[in-house]
Amino acid sequence: MDLKAFDRIIMGIDPGTNVMGYGILGVRANKPEVIVMGVIELSKFESHYKRLHRIFERVSGLAAQYLPDEVALEAPFFGKNVQSMLKLGRAQGVAMAAVLTRDIPVSEYAPRSVKMAVTGNGQASKEQVSNMLRHLLHIPADQIPGPLDATDALAVALTHYYETGKPAVAKGPKSWADFIAKNPDRVKK
Amino acid sequence: MDLKAFDRIIMGIDPGTNVMGYGILGVRANKPEVIVMGVIELSKFESHYKRLHRIFERVSGLAAQYLPDEVALEAPFFGKNVQSMLKLGRAQGVAMAAVLTRDIPVSEYAPRSVKMAVTGNGQASKEQVSNMLRHLLHIPADQIPGPLDATDALAVALTHYYETGKPAVAKGPKSWADFIAKNPDRVKK
Repeated sequence: MDLKAFDRIIMGIDPGTNVMGYGILGVRANKPEVIVMGVIELSKFESHYKRLHRIFERVSGLAAQYLPDEVALEAPFFGKNVQSMLKLGRAQGVAMAAVLTRDIPVSEYAPRSVKMAVTGNGQASKEQVSNMLRHLLHIPADQIPGPLDATDALAVALTHYYETGKPAVAKGPKSWADFIAKNPDRVKK
Repeated sequence: MDLKAFDRIIMGIDPGTNVMGYGILGVRANKPEVIVMGVIELSKFESHYKRLHRIFERVSGLAAQYLPDEVALEAPFFGKNVQSMLKLGRAQGVAMAAVLTRDIPVSEYAPRSVKMAVTGNGQASKEQVSNMLRHLLHIPADQIPGPLDATDALAVALTHYYETGKPAVAKGPKSWADFIAKNPDRVKK
């Protein structure tokens, strides 16, 4: 895949301490498409530190390979208890470190906002999010990897695209030359 | 300072989102001494991400400069609320990422254990910890930097030294040759 073909590349991450999902979107001609998606399995590592190390290595590797311009994180702001929030915070911190060292800007979206942006329903199930993504991004059914964490990550990347794409579209082209370059089909021959 | 003079170098970190303390101990002839201590000021950065980025850079820089063999973190396991624990977890995660990528083993100690190890009182104040450290490590009063976060970090490094040093001492010398090498003054001439 030629990464240079894209105007923007957005990496979505759904951090967790057992499984971390990632989904990378490329945008060209104002249309988002899937570059890659998958999960980082962490449950095989017993040590908490090995898991954190693994997250750093894999996120760092993905950033080096796909050169995202922006990173969007799914970040719950409320959790069951302080213990699980501390662990989640560490996983998020390690993932953030891997991209912040590359000077890639990070944005965060609450799970409810992601569901809202993708399905129009803040209470949507993971399956509903996955089905809607498949539809919006024209993903063949057999290309969805098993765990839904990957589609969650893709959903947060798409949410970021919606959130940040709107103002840019509203602003319109920078100049006539820019407009013509971006809309060759609207130029009368 | 010649780092090669030390048998072990232990870096203590007291992570926080406003100030992060660090204290590095060198051990030679079974005696710990201060190599460096200080704080990383974070409150000047408004952006949460800039703070995290700064933590990574500084901890990474300290690890590169002082080449610690082990890192010990002061890590509260209970906090006031899930929000503050998530933020603290991120700061910890970023600091951990900076050392885990160098394959430096990380240990954690609860604040109570640190106070207990250094002063014998799990409820000791920060001032009591600081005074005891000054005494134990023979630090001149004018060498303690302002914020107590630096002494807290030094305290966790010392705790790690006590915790990991004890078993080795209890085990005794590996052999007669080892015993003689380590105790030349006890050999009859």
